[in-house]
Amino acid sequence: MATQNNAPAGGMRDFLPVEAGRRQAVIHTIQEVYRTWGFLPLETPALERLATLQGKYGEEGENLMYKVLKRGAKLDRALASDPRPDDLADMGLRYDLTVPLARVMAAHQADLPAIFKRYQIQSVFRADRPARGRYREFSQCDVDIVGVAGVDAEADVLGAAAESLCRLGFKQPDDFTLRLNHRQVLAGLLARAGIPEQLAGEAMVAVDKADKIGLDGVRRELAERGIAPAAGDTFLTMASDMSELASTKELLTILADWLGDSGPTGEGVADLKQLTDLLEAGPAAGRYRIDPLLARGLGYYTGAIYEVQFPDFSGSGGGGGRYDNLLGMFSGRSVPACGFSFGLERILLIMADRAMFGVGMERGPQVLVAQMDPAVAGHVHRAANQLRQAGLRTDLYPSAGRLGRQFRYAESQGIRYVALAGTSEAETGQLSVKDLETGEQTTLPLTDAVAHLKALLN
Amino acid sequence: MATQNNAPAGGMRDFLPVEAGRRQAVIHTIQEVYRTWGFLPLETPALERLATLQGKYGEEGENLMYKVLKRGAKLDRALASDPRPDDLADMGLRYDLTVPLARVMAAHQADLPAIFKRYQIQSVFRADRPARGRYREFSQCDVDIVGVAGVDAEADVLGAAAESLCRLGFKQPDDFTLRLNHRQVLAGLLARAGIPEQLAGEAMVAVDKADKIGLDGVRRELAERGIAPAAGDTFLTMASDMSELASTKELLTILADWLGDSGPTGEGVADLKQLTDLLEAGPAAGRYRIDPLLARGLGYYTGAIYEVQFPDFSGSGGGGGRYDNLLGMFSGRSVPACGFSFGLERILLIMADRAMFGVGMERGPQVLVAQMDPAVAGHVHRAANQLRQAGLRTDLYPSAGRLGRQFRYAESQGIRYVALAGTSEAETGQLSVKDLETGEQTTLPLTDAVAHLKALLN
Repeated sequence: MATQNNAPAGGMRDFLPVEAGRRQAVIHTIQEVYRTWGFLPLETPALERLATLQGKYGEEGENLMYKVLKRGAKLDRALASDPRPDDLADMGLRYDLTVPLARVMAAHQADLPAIFKRYQIQSVFRADRPARGRYREFSQCDVDIVGVAGVDAEADVLGAAAESLCRLGFKQPDDFTLRLNHRQVLAGLLARAGIPEQLAGEAMVAVDKADKIGLDGVRRELAERGIAPAAGDTFLTMASDMSELASTKELLTILADWLGDSGPTGEGVADLKQLTDLLEAGPAAGRYRIDPLLARGLGYYTGAIYEVQFPDFSGSGGGGGRYDNLLGMFSGRSVPACGFSFGLERILLIMADRAMFGVGMERGPQVLVAQMDPAVAGHVHRAANQLRQAGLRTDLYPSAGRLGRQFRYAESQGIRYVALAGTSEAETGQLSVKDLETGEQTTLPLTDAVAHLKALLN
Repeated sequence: MATQNNAPAGGMRDFLPVEAGRRQAVIHTIQEVYRTWGFLPLETPALERLATLQGKYGEEGENLMYKVLKRGAKLDRALASDPRPDDLADMGLRYDLTVPLARVMAAHQADLPAIFKRYQIQSVFRADRPARGRYREFSQCDVDIVGVAGVDAEADVLGAAAESLCRLGFKQPDDFTLRLNHRQVLAGLLARAGIPEQLAGEAMVAVDKADKIGLDGVRRELAERGIAPAAGDTFLTMASDMSELASTKELLTILADWLGDSGPTGEGVADLKQLTDLLEAGPAAGRYRIDPLLARGLGYYTGAIYEVQFPDFSGSGGGGGRYDNLLGMFSGRSVPACGFSFGLERILLIMADRAMFGVGMERGPQVLVAQMDPAVAGHVHRAANQLRQAGLRTDLYPSAGRLGRQFRYAESQGIRYVALAGTSEAETGQLSVKDLETGEQTTLPLTDAVAHLKALLN
């Protein structure tokens, strides 16, 4: 018999208690903030019809998509006739949260508000080559406003994102920065630098790599993509000049000066002006900067674009933008929309690196109720129950036995306080509280012991 | 071009905001209770190696399991050689939460505590024929204690389950009942009735249907399964006699009288006695009854078994039991365990039928901040932000425009209070609060308006 491989499948992960607790705490915090900002939850199935997913994610998406084998007679029929791979599958696994949102918009139009502010936190599946930090099942954490054309929507989305980060503990002004740009502004700058419109897409792909390959790298890549070196240099000089400006106000003045105030480019500058004004009224105040080198790889953005950046961490912790022509893919009805998506795995990584998870966040038990004598198990269970009713996370050692072993169990679980009740405590309705760190032990009437532990732990 | 089908795939569901909010609220409540009871979270991947899943769920499981098509060169190779269905797949979708727990126990033994109290709430996938209340993706909500042989563990699991139901609003003593039984006790009763041991399994399958087919149905089914009618009658008479007893104490006395106190049967009676004593010390007090007709279909239970029953709803709202020989399937190391699993979909259904979801539970927005004049958007965003900082779930209408439309939007979202700020409010730093139900409108300085709304909503 072959040895069983008990590890999770390649690229998949088991989340043991500490990690699962952190994930649940972070997700819950984000959900609560989104709720407070008036966003509504949406959940879609892990499996979608293959036809829903196909043709939506480009060639790479087709290759990375997990497909579900047909079953029973349908599979037999497919196998009987020299099948192509797609004849064998009828569903695919969730690949992102945007295509399902578009499908929901088409399927449930009458049941959704005209302005739909939704959040959705679910896992997606991609058959990518596993690597450090790259998994085949990972969580996406999307917030979008559908049905609004103006940048009030972007301000709301970015305010909620900034507030989420603050609540997670990124409280200092330089704990994170929102980089802002605008597709039309970027297009205007590229045009002003002398890059022809038909090469603007190529140029954006090159600019998008600035984070990874530096400005010299972008210069080379622009040239490789057929852009005249002089034009590329002009663009990069403009971008550098802007980065040196002290304030958003100055930068916006220069942009208006260079790009004028008419047409899509002028509207882009006006959008950035209005958006930064609105951000000043909320939790993102002082936490953003306009970055002319922000491009966002995906082709579908049409207006403002943004990314969260953390100091000392390359890459982004989340991003998004306006995508006005995407959500009509199923309904045929174009609808303006903008959104933001957290890179949840990255946020968790940064928080772990910065030791931002307190014991409180992991929500492990705070008290262990130990058992010394099976004859008084009723008293002990009652004590545990009172501690729980008082809101203390209370583990109960599930059998009477040697205290040493129970203390070691508490220590292995990170529990500092042990509540004890033997025959004498049970007879007098008391409970002893032992602090494993100091060794101190106090015996009190049950109610007082509960209050004592509550005071110690709060 | 074929018309696109925008509905979710067969047996799958979209959860729109109201339903998603209810699900998230119920899951969060259960998680919080489990945390308070000292249980730790575990999450496992949606996709498992096919070898992990195969042979674990019987023939039915093999048929209902979703399998994931191989990709790339592996798929090409498989297709090249007249493949059987299983040659085409390399992974399967999560089918339950017990096999993954067993795999985790084997894979991470050194990282898990000797006594592992875990909860796990994730969706599972079964290619069953869709029907009312039967879906192909549904949530399981498992809590288990691994590594404990005594009924302290069952008392902890059932206490946490009862507390979860109380917190969800099932507060009255007759809002739910825990039915208890014990596999060894059931076996003892069947033996005493004269049913031979080798037919005990058949008899349990018949008894398990008592809820659906009634006692007469069980009588017929026992006969069909080869059990002598006299023995079947004896068993059912014993069960009826017991059901008529007023108290658990009387019932336990009769059981001890009939079954003695030695061997597995005697231990079973002692287990039930100890378990019911311990339940009296916690939230399940007065909310259980021993039911000799409870059998639980699954073959793997070895000790106490239990189900939650709701009045006026047939079937169970969750159940579980002790299964001491199951979790060693990967580690080869037998480990005692008991658990409980909520039927989440059923709980949600019962709560909806009983109108137990308040607006608070669905967590929709409480205040809409309306916009009348784009020139004062900053003041309006600031007002929205202050309401949010005060903890009020606050939606912001994302563009200035006619108030009538914004009021209708608020009403469609179930929002009673609208906060307004036009030019005059902005100039004086004020905010108007309108109650859409009474039509009343008050204008107050911003901070007072926030306090006023907070008072109205709490």
